[in-house]
Amino acid sequence: MTTMTPQQVRRHHQGPTAGLADGYAQANLIAVPEDWAYDVLLFTQRNPRPCPVLDVTDKGRTTTVLAGNADLMRDVPRYRIWEHGELVDEPTDASAHWRDDLVAFLIGCSFTFESALKLVDVPLRHVEQGRNVPMYVTDRECRPAGRLHGPMVVSMRYVPADLVDTAKRVTSRMPAVHGAPVHVGDPGALGIADVDRPDFGDRTEPHEGDVPVFWACGVTPQAAVMASKPPFAITHAPGHMFVTDVPDLAYQL
Amino acid sequence: MTTMTPQQVRRHHQGPTAGLADGYAQANLIAVPEDWAYDVLLFTQRNPRPCPVLDVTDKGRTTTVLAGNADLMRDVPRYRIWEHGELVDEPTDASAHWRDDLVAFLIGCSFTFESALKLVDVPLRHVEQGRNVPMYVTDRECRPAGRLHGPMVVSMRYVPADLVDTAKRVTSRMPAVHGAPVHVGDPGALGIADVDRPDFGDRTEPHEGDVPVFWACGVTPQAAVMASKPPFAITHAPGHMFVTDVPDLAYQL
Repeated sequence: MTTMTPQQVRRHHQGPTAGLADGYAQANLIAVPEDWAYDVLLFTQRNPRPCPVLDVTDKGRTTTVLAGNADLMRDVPRYRIWEHGELVDEPTDASAHWRDDLVAFLIGCSFTFESALKLVDVPLRHVEQGRNVPMYVTDRECRPAGRLHGPMVVSMRYVPADLVDTAKRVTSRMPAVHGAPVHVGDPGALGIADVDRPDFGDRTEPHEGDVPVFWACGVTPQAAVMASKPPFAITHAPGHMFVTDVPDLAYQL
Repeated sequence: MTTMTPQQVRRHHQGPTAGLADGYAQANLIAVPEDWAYDVLLFTQRNPRPCPVLDVTDKGRTTTVLAGNADLMRDVPRYRIWEHGELVDEPTDASAHWRDDLVAFLIGCSFTFESALKLVDVPLRHVEQGRNVPMYVTDRECRPAGRLHGPMVVSMRYVPADLVDTAKRVTSRMPAVHGAPVHVGDPGALGIADVDRPDFGDRTEPHEGDVPVFWACGVTPQAAVMASKPPFAITHAPGHMFVTDVPDLAYQL
């Protein structure tokens, strides 16, 4: 698809990252004031399917073990700035908003298991169609933690019916990037009214015989920010991930 | 081995728990004052092999989702009470020591993967020999978190050489209870001087052709308590685990 390195994506890319820097793990970002860090970390522990944590920074630091020379306040393609649960800005550089009291959490992203799916010939419709993956807010509540609560968000990929078991098996061995699907088949079972109207990302086109397969999604902390209204937070924009230097398959058991 | 239920072990048993309540997951305990809870939770996140968290209580609560009717301050067979990193008591009931500001962490235990090993005919020498599993402090430092630091602790099982690959494969699919071995073969590679003198638990006898296999161990937080000296902590005594109502195989991917 691309010849961009992880560092090139971090430095120069401003759009969705699905299919970019092929073979390298991508991550969701949520940064909150220190006072909220325990609630966020406990929320991730209690909801490991949507929120598998790959790294947590020390307060005031914007570096991560996942990419030695990266700067978390500049190297995400697009950010969302939140005040009391309201989206107030969507910059491509967050350095004007970053604060010394922020703790940043990097959370596994399902783009990371896409290279494993490709290796077993599971097609990726959103990548083929040049779109961001579709994401949906479900009616499943996460287990609350302190002041944080909110619904689980899922991503959806259309998978040929005869490859669903393969997709389940391959992704089940990658729990750090959401693991096995949370549901296969009926969007209504997750409270999704219309699969063609995702809450985040783009709709994708199924091929004949495709089945919708839903995985827990790292946008879930953003839904918790909207529901729980911490005074301040910085996240990535959905689909616009932090690209790490860690190979995708490092997260396969 | 036994017909005790998890609840019977929690209520009535005061010794090591290896092989008891067959089929139910066991857990390590560490409870610290709220002021230290973030450091502990971050330490577990940064060291997931020795410290996979199964549940975290809310401050002042002694109940857990892992066993509906259990009381964490009474239902561990033996506790260790720590003050400034020093062991000050080893009671079978911690209710006289428990405090309203404690947050308790339940951490996966390798006893949990033993039923999976039995299912594929990997013998368990310590269970056969009626002993606690041997545990060792290694020379591998954990990644520090805030005020917490310390070495990784491992448990060791002798495994017939031709079953080592099987043991690796089976346990790799159970990351919530330490996952794959961290080392196979040479105790010296982990800084263990004498495999017959474990730091915790009992020595076990190998059979001819057995190889020592080392897994990360949930006693690691106790080694961090000794090294980091928080003002107060309560843990289980090594090998004397909290027995949950969760089936072992619920933690197999």
